Amino acid sequence: MTHLRMPDALENVQALRVAPYRTDFLLTWEKSVEELLATMHVAEILQEAHRQGRSLRSFDGGLAVSIFRDKSTRTRFSFASAAAALGLGVQDLDEEKSQISHGETVRETAVMISFLTEVIGIRDDMFLGEGNRYMREVAAAVTESFKAGILHRRPPVINLQCDMDHPTQTLADLLALKHHFGSFEALRGKKIAMTWAYSPSYGKPLSVPQGIIALLTRFGMEVRLAHPEGYDLLPEVSQVAGKNATTSGGTFVKMDRMADAFAGADIVYPKSWAPFTVMQQRTKLLREGNRTGLSELERECLARNAAFKSWECNEAMMSQTRGGKALYMHCLPADISTVSCAQGEVSADVFERYRLATYREAGFKPFVIAAMILLAAREDAVKHLQHIVS
Amino acid sequence: MTHLRMPDALENVQALRVAPYRTDFLLTWEKSVEELLATMHVAEILQEAHRQGRSLRSFDGGLAVSIFRDKSTRTRFSFASAAAALGLGVQDLDEEKSQISHGETVRETAVMISFLTEVIGIRDDMFLGEGNRYMREVAAAVTESFKAGILHRRPPVINLQCDMDHPTQTLADLLALKHHFGSFEALRGKKIAMTWAYSPSYGKPLSVPQGIIALLTRFGMEVRLAHPEGYDLLPEVSQVAGKNATTSGGTFVKMDRMADAFAGADIVYPKSWAPFTVMQQRTKLLREGNRTGLSELERECLARNAAFKSWECNEAMMSQTRGGKALYMHCLPADISTVSCAQGEVSADVFERYRLATYREAGFKPFVIAAMILLAAREDAVKHLQHIVS
Amino acid sequence: MTHLRMPDALENVQALRVAPYRTDFLLTWEKSVEELLATMHVAEILQEAHRQGRSLRSFDGGLAVSIFRDKSTRTRFSFASAAAALGLGVQDLDEEKSQISHGETVRETAVMISFLTEVIGIRDDMFLGEGNRYMREVAAAVTESFKAGILHRRPPVINLQCDMDHPTQTLADLLALKHHFGSFEALRGKKIAMTWAYSPSYGKPLSVPQGIIALLTRFGMEVRLAHPEGYDLLPEVSQVAGKNATTSGGTFVKMDRMADAFAGADIVYPKSWAPFTVMQQRTKLLREGNRTGLSELERECLARNAAFKSWECNEAMMSQTRGGKALYMHCLPADISTVSCAQGEVSADVFERYRLATYREAGFKPFVIAAMILLAAREDAVKHLQHIVS
Repeated sequence: MTHLRMPDALENVQALRVAPYRTDFLLTWEKSVEELLATMHVAEILQEAHRQGRSLRSFDGGLAVSIFRDKSTRTRFSFASAAAALGLGVQDLDEEKSQISHGETVRETAVMISFLTEVIGIRDDMFLGEGNRYMREVAAAVTESFKAGILHRRPPVINLQCDMDHPTQTLADLLALKHHFGSFEALRGKKIAMTWAYSPSYGKPLSVPQGIIALLTRFGMEVRLAHPEGYDLLPEVSQVAGKNATTSGGTFVKMDRMADAFAGADIVYPKSWAPFTVMQQRTKLLREGNRTGLSELERECLARNAAFKSWECNEAMMSQTRGGKALYMHCLPADISTVSCAQGEVSADVFERYRLATYREAGFKPFVIAAMILLAAREDAVKHLQHIVS
Repeated sequence: MTHLRMPDALENVQALRVAPYRTDFLLTWEKSVEELLATMHVAEILQEAHRQGRSLRSFDGGLAVSIFRDKSTRTRFSFASAAAALGLGVQDLDEEKSQISHGETVRETAVMISFLTEVIGIRDDMFLGEGNRYMREVAAAVTESFKAGILHRRPPVINLQCDMDHPTQTLADLLALKHHFGSFEALRGKKIAMTWAYSPSYGKPLSVPQGIIALLTRFGMEVRLAHPEGYDLLPEVSQVAGKNATTSGGTFVKMDRMADAFAGADIVYPKSWAPFTVMQQRTKLLREGNRTGLSELERECLARNAAFKSWECNEAMMSQTRGGKALYMHCLPADISTVSCAQGEVSADVFERYRLATYREAGFKPFVIAAMILLAAREDAVKHLQHIVS
Repeated sequence: MTHLRMPDALENVQALRVAPYRTDFLLTWEKSVEELLATMHVAEILQEAHRQGRSLRSFDGGLAVSIFRDKSTRTRFSFASAAAALGLGVQDLDEEKSQISHGETVRETAVMISFLTEVIGIRDDMFLGEGNRYMREVAAAVTESFKAGILHRRPPVINLQCDMDHPTQTLADLLALKHHFGSFEALRGKKIAMTWAYSPSYGKPLSVPQGIIALLTRFGMEVRLAHPEGYDLLPEVSQVAGKNATTSGGTFVKMDRMADAFAGADIVYPKSWAPFTVMQQRTKLLREGNRTGLSELERECLARNAAFKSWECNEAMMSQTRGGKALYMHCLPADISTVSCAQGEVSADVFERYRLATYREAGFKPFVIAAMILLAAREDAVKHLQHIVS
């Protein structure tokens, strides 16, 4: 990995003249390319500063609040460690869903947890049409109370994974690609296969594949999306990816077979997800409290999955990529055949070959989150960065 | 809201010459008016300092320990954010009740969590005769070990709500009143209706109404307490309120009807609570492990509540207050008719009109808690405040 | 308690020229006597600095991660308060065992929680042959990723109690002994009775008695181990104790009766534990998911325990110690007859006489942990100590 020269990086940030102070980070496609680049630049600066043993401290107290409406280890620790490195305490809102499911209560709770809070990170990826909407409800509530003078500062909301996007993950992925290929420019024309893969588990969110196709199409890449019939992503996100490709000079192609997507690919990202029609049914059944329906849906879904066990990233599949040496990516944890399950997304030998690469990929995430917090919660972020590196 | 001029505020604190260093904050009626004023002054200074973006950091590490023996979101976050703003880490003691219910174990646990601890905040409001007693057991234990030289410093104990009082809430309420009416002096003679209100839920603590009548009678207000027959508060707290009114030149009146209490009132605080006789029975049944008895008691209690559905704070009721414009107060969350329940403490239109006012009221709480911690855990609190604001 | 003179203490640390930077603390018998002395010296310096009101802050942000695979209050708070005093945020990894039981997943999770982490504390004492092994898996994983440049720094792993040893407890115990008798030198030849004691509970870990016999034999003490037949400790640890005694000029003797071990003892440490053969069966049954077998084992084990109710540390037993005045030690919580159970490890009168002494003993633990963190996670620990005390 080439290490960043600090002064250059700072010039880049300043040159971009981007100041996303007090704005939320909810979907990458709501952000300009400049804003995305600024976030990644700051992440690199923080990562390099940490490598050099410098203090990242940017706050003299105050809270970072997290709300995890789904289990999480990786993102939880990424958020907590980013906050702690910046000097913030972490407090998790451990509400049962029932307690904050009403619009009224979300509005109130959002304000109650925000009086001395610098940032709110939310993970809510279980139900289509719900997660991102919930984040916007929280954001609207803190805006209202900030405007009324009740909150002294408006804590920005950071999407730690929703039903639509997973920006902290995909920006970490993009940084991993930049470091692997040397520059963002070097990514132009590179072929990435974002493909479905078989998993014995059920109901995995769509946020990673959606986030990947929507983000990487903005950087001139050839993005191939492949999945079995019926495993479509949200149509609006596919449309976003198509438009992004047109704008950036990249490509967005849908394919029906894993092998087609892998052919000549520079990068592969094989990962399981649930069909969004199933996710929609599931949301409906859950709202109705229909337990029998849910069990039946799970059985059906797993049975359907089982028809596509051949969607495994193994050495035979990898051999079809460019020179047989495509970069394998995964957001972790992967379902590894014979290791974490009988058969899964990736064979043990392929995964082992790229295991450390996936750890390195994950290692960008805490710094991406720290960059988002710093840019959104400190008005003088660029000036403060100069303090960190000097 | 008028903003505090800093130097004035500091002079006030010094003039009061109150030094509640290392003392607990368990009941407002154990504190002198001067001590209460000092706490609120410091809360205002900290709130204004935060509004101006100043650092509230007062500790260079160390722990704030919380013990929540009942569910809490608001108070939990108020305590956590106050601690984090002051530079303390927060550690929650998540004991199951059974494990620390014995006198012996309380004593030992209190010391085990206190070796590097600056403050202990406790919420224990479920059982009459238990919560405040538990806080005093913890306080006695840390005193014993401090005197024996085992603890280097004695962490003060702060009542985050017990069976008798809820001082962090009621001081926040009082600050909200001061800011609404302009000064503590302006509160003299103002009529506040602290009334029971109907709720479809069961077993709400008595601490807020008790704390309100005991506190506001000290500031020369006309405090009216109204509730249906059988919903009495603890007799000793009513006596405290009566005496306070006499001393301060205020009034404490009990009434039988919500409408009577609302008539001409400047402020209304309609809130549900359980009759203390029911709370007593409940404590007894719980100790006996009598599940059937508990279910039966809940059924009876809810049936009895249902007879008083007319105790709702709605527009008709509000129209009887002074100019129809009394300030509506609530400690939140309120049971809002047609919003959080079919019928509850307050109608949706009244609540919506005062919604932001209740958020503002809640916003004083973290600063009240921070003030309590600062005054009790830093010997040089006043000097340190000068450092914060300079 | 005599207070440390700071300059002397610092000279000692420097004189030892021990730099356990980035090394784990897993078993005391893997450490040289010099390293143990250095750790205890630093603990004393930090304790004295805290007593004098000095800041122990040593990190400008960053995380201390804890993993508790068994319930804990004391050690949890010791670790949290040590970390908070040093300026680290605390994040607990709350994984269910099933999720991180595979070798693969341990390796991955260890790295995922370590990107901005300064230290990892682990408690895993439930299953023989598991806990210490798990710690080494975590340690190996972070080493691998550090060597690959994925982690900027390698977080040291601290054993907060495993199946073999409990070093933070036993070093705190040893410091308590030093302060009681005046010096480490004064401990030479002192007789300590580490004995089993009856408890109505089941399955207590072996780590404390094992840790005590392995540690105190290194300081020239006469260590007596007594337990009923069948309650043996791990044979390899007994061997370690025997060798240590030979090297240090101390003694390690096994006895069959509590009274024999108490006769003329200067110190007694009566504490219940499960026989390791039972622990082994239990591990096997748990792995098989054999619930019936487990219940049966518990019944058998409790029945067997009941045959040894006479192993109680009471006044009659104490009267046989040196002058009837041996120091009573316990890692807490003790099973106190008539207080926390009908009959247990210690009678109420004996315990009450030594209650504050056991609190004092426990009070060394947070400082021992802080010393371990400081020495392992700051390369310039000694220089930094000079900053703390100057």
